Amino acid sequence: MISSYYSPTRVVFGKGAKSEVGKELEKEGAKKVLVHFGGSSAEKSGLLSLVRKSLKEKKIDFVELGGVKPNPRLSLVRKGIEIGKKEGVDFILAVGGGSVIDSAKAIGYGIKECGDVWDFYDGRKEAQNSVPIGVILTLSATGSELSNSSVITNEEGFLKRGYNNDISRPRFAILDPELTYTVSRYQTEVGSIDIMMHTIERFFHSGDGLDFTDELAATLIRDTIEKGLIAIENPDNYQARASLMWASSLSHNGLMALGNDQRGDWACHQLEHELSGMFDIAHGAGLAILFPAWCQYVYKDEPERFAKLGRLVFGIKESGEDGALLTIEKFKQCFREFEMPLSLKEAGIDLSDEMLEELLDKATFYGKRTLGAFKTLEREDMKAIYLLAK
Amino acid sequence: MISSYYSPTRVVFGKGAKSEVGKELEKEGAKKVLVHFGGSSAEKSGLLSLVRKSLKEKKIDFVELGGVKPNPRLSLVRKGIEIGKKEGVDFILAVGGGSVIDSAKAIGYGIKECGDVWDFYDGRKEAQNSVPIGVILTLSATGSELSNSSVITNEEGFLKRGYNNDISRPRFAILDPELTYTVSRYQTEVGSIDIMMHTIERFFHSGDGLDFTDELAATLIRDTIEKGLIAIENPDNYQARASLMWASSLSHNGLMALGNDQRGDWACHQLEHELSGMFDIAHGAGLAILFPAWCQYVYKDEPERFAKLGRLVFGIKESGEDGALLTIEKFKQCFREFEMPLSLKEAGIDLSDEMLEELLDKATFYGKRTLGAFKTLEREDMKAIYLLAK
Repeated sequence: MISSYYSPTRVVFGKGAKSEVGKELEKEGAKKVLVHFGGSSAEKSGLLSLVRKSLKEKKIDFVELGGVKPNPRLSLVRKGIEIGKKEGVDFILAVGGGSVIDSAKAIGYGIKECGDVWDFYDGRKEAQNSVPIGVILTLSATGSELSNSSVITNEEGFLKRGYNNDISRPRFAILDPELTYTVSRYQTEVGSIDIMMHTIERFFHSGDGLDFTDELAATLIRDTIEKGLIAIENPDNYQARASLMWASSLSHNGLMALGNDQRGDWACHQLEHELSGMFDIAHGAGLAILFPAWCQYVYKDEPERFAKLGRLVFGIKESGEDGALLTIEKFKQCFREFEMPLSLKEAGIDLSDEMLEELLDKATFYGKRTLGAFKTLEREDMKAIYLLAK
Repeated sequence: MISSYYSPTRVVFGKGAKSEVGKELEKEGAKKVLVHFGGSSAEKSGLLSLVRKSLKEKKIDFVELGGVKPNPRLSLVRKGIEIGKKEGVDFILAVGGGSVIDSAKAIGYGIKECGDVWDFYDGRKEAQNSVPIGVILTLSATGSELSNSSVITNEEGFLKRGYNNDISRPRFAILDPELTYTVSRYQTEVGSIDIMMHTIERFFHSGDGLDFTDELAATLIRDTIEKGLIAIENPDNYQARASLMWASSLSHNGLMALGNDQRGDWACHQLEHELSGMFDIAHGAGLAILFPAWCQYVYKDEPERFAKLGRLVFGIKESGEDGALLTIEKFKQCFREFEMPLSLKEAGIDLSDEMLEELLDKATFYGKRTLGAFKTLEREDMKAIYLLAK
C-alpha cells in the first residue's frame, strides 16, 4: 500500500511571527489581497490594524471581508467570490481560525472556477484551480492552516459538507501562539478535542500501518491533553499555547497518516458534521459525545487497536477487550476533564425520532453512502451510534 | 524568536512505491533526466532497470552518471555538471542514499549557476537556481531526501563542506522500505546513529524551545533505537525498515527544530566532517565517537537539558548533573549495542599531534570560525573534545 505526504505550507512560528505578514505576502507576489476574517475580536485585538499597516507598507492593495461565523456559511462564501472576481483578487489572507480559513479556501476555488462552488462540496466536481491562500492563525483547533480540507455549511437545509483538494493547502501559515492567549476557556477545550480527534480518526485506519506513525500520533495526543489542560487554567502560558498551535497543524496535515491507509476512518467526524450542521453545537463537543459511542459500537471488531491507543496515550497495561474498554473509559475521563458533554442530552439536545431520521438521511447522503473505513457503517450502524450517544 | 518549517517534498511511501517513479517525473514535467547513482548495487538489484523502463514508458529522455562514493567527491560533481550542461538536463533523479542525493544537489546548483560550484560549499556565494531533484531512496541515514543540505568532499586537501539552501529540497522522494532490505548490518548501524544525531543536534539548541518538539524528538530517537536494533538482526523486517526510513527523513527536514533556535548545535557534525574527510571513516561511526566526548565537555553548562533528553528517551529519573551523566552513559551503551566504536583508537585511528592540529585547522576554517550554538566552541575547546575522543 502506498501512502503520500505533501505539506508544502511555509510555517512561520513563534512570538512576533504576526509581523512577518507583509514579508510573506511580498514573497508570494500578491498584488490584490482579500483580507478575510470573522467577528470583532481581530479588530479589537489590533491584529487587523497590524495587517492593514503591513500591507500598506509593502504597497499591496487589498479589500476586506469579515463576518465569518463558526460553521462557515455558503452565503458569505458566495459574497467573497463575487468581491474577488469584481476586484481581481489574486491572494486571500485568512485572519482567524478554522472557519475563516475554510471560508477562504471555498472563496479561492470559487474565484478561479466557473459554475457553483457548492458543487465541489456536494461531490459533483473537482476543482482544478484556486486563488492561493495565506493564514494568520488565531485559534488552535481545526488544522485547516496546513490541511487540504475545508468544511462549509449550506444554509439551504443546513447541510455541512467537506471538500479536500491539495491546491487549497495554504502557501504560508503564520503561527504566533500569543494570538491565542485570549481564546476562551470553552474554545480552548473544544479546540483541544478537535486536535486530538484529527489524529485519532487517522489512527483508526484499515489494514496494517506504520508503528512509528502510531508513536508520533500518541505523542501528539498525550501532549495535547497535557497542554490543553494547562492552557485552560493558564490562558497565557506560552508553552501550552505554542504546543497546541503546532499540534493543531500537525494533526491534520497528513503526517499522522504516513504509512497507513490514508483514508483514516472519519465516521465520527461525518456523524458530527450532521449534528453541528443541524444543532449548531461546537464541533469539538459533538466529537466528544460521538467518539465514545463509536468506540463502544465498533471496538469488538479489533479490540487490540483500541488497547494499543490506550497503552501509548495513557500507559494502560491491559490488552484485548479489557484494554479496549479501559481505553474508552480513559478517553471519557479525559473529555470530562475538558468539561465536555458525554451525551446529546448533556449538550441540551433532546433527539426525537424525526430528528434522528433526518440526521441519518443527511449522514448517508440520502442513502447514497456508507461511512468509515476502519469499520464501514451502514445506516443502521449510524443509528445505533447516535442512539448510544443519546 | 521566530522559527520556520518548510518541507515541500512530495513523499511517496510504502511497498511498491518505486514503481511510481515514471508518474512522479511526468508530474514534474521532466524532459531530460540525469539518472545519478552509486555503485553496482542499484544495477544488481534491478532498480536501475526499473527506472530505465519507467522513463522509456513515459517517453522521457535520460542520461546516466553512476560512481558516487560515500563522502561524495567534487570531481564527480564537476563531471555531472559538464554532462548536465552539454545534454540540457532539466531534472536530476538521485537513485541511492545520502551521498548520491548530496552529489545530485551539487550538480543541480552547478548546471544552473555560473562559476565554480565549490564556492557555495566554501561559503563564498549563495545559489539562486538549481535543477530540480527527485529521489528514490535506498539507504536510511542522512535525511538528504527531505533536507535542504548537502555535503561534498573536495579531494584537493580532503575538505568536507556542507551547504544548505531550500531550493535544493527534492521535489519528490520515493520511500520504498523494501529497497533497504539489502543494506548491510554495518550500514544499518551507522545509518541509525546518523538518524538519531540529526535530531540530537537540533535538541541542543540555545535558549528556550518548544516542549512538544522535544517530545516528538524523543519519540523519533526512541523509535530509531528500537527499530534500528530490530533491523540489524532482521534485515527484512518491514516495520523496522519503514520506521527507520521515515525517521531518516523527519530527522532532517526541520520538523525537529520547530519552535527552537533553528541553528541547533551541529558542533559534533562539523568536528566529524573533518574526521571522516581526513580518515574516510563512516559518518555515523565518527558521530558515535564524538557525541559522548562533546557531552562530557559541555554538559556542566546546562546539565538539565541532558537530563531531560535522558528522561524522555531512556526514562531515567535523575535530574541535574547525575541525570546528565546517566544520559551520557545511556547513549554510550546504546551506541555499543549498535556495535559502534567509542573512541578514535577503537576505530583504528591513532591521532598524532600533527593530525590533531590539521583537524583543528580545518574545523576552524583556519582560524576563521567557531563551532556550536548550544555552546560556542573555540579551537581550544575543539582540541579538548578531540582529545576526549582519542
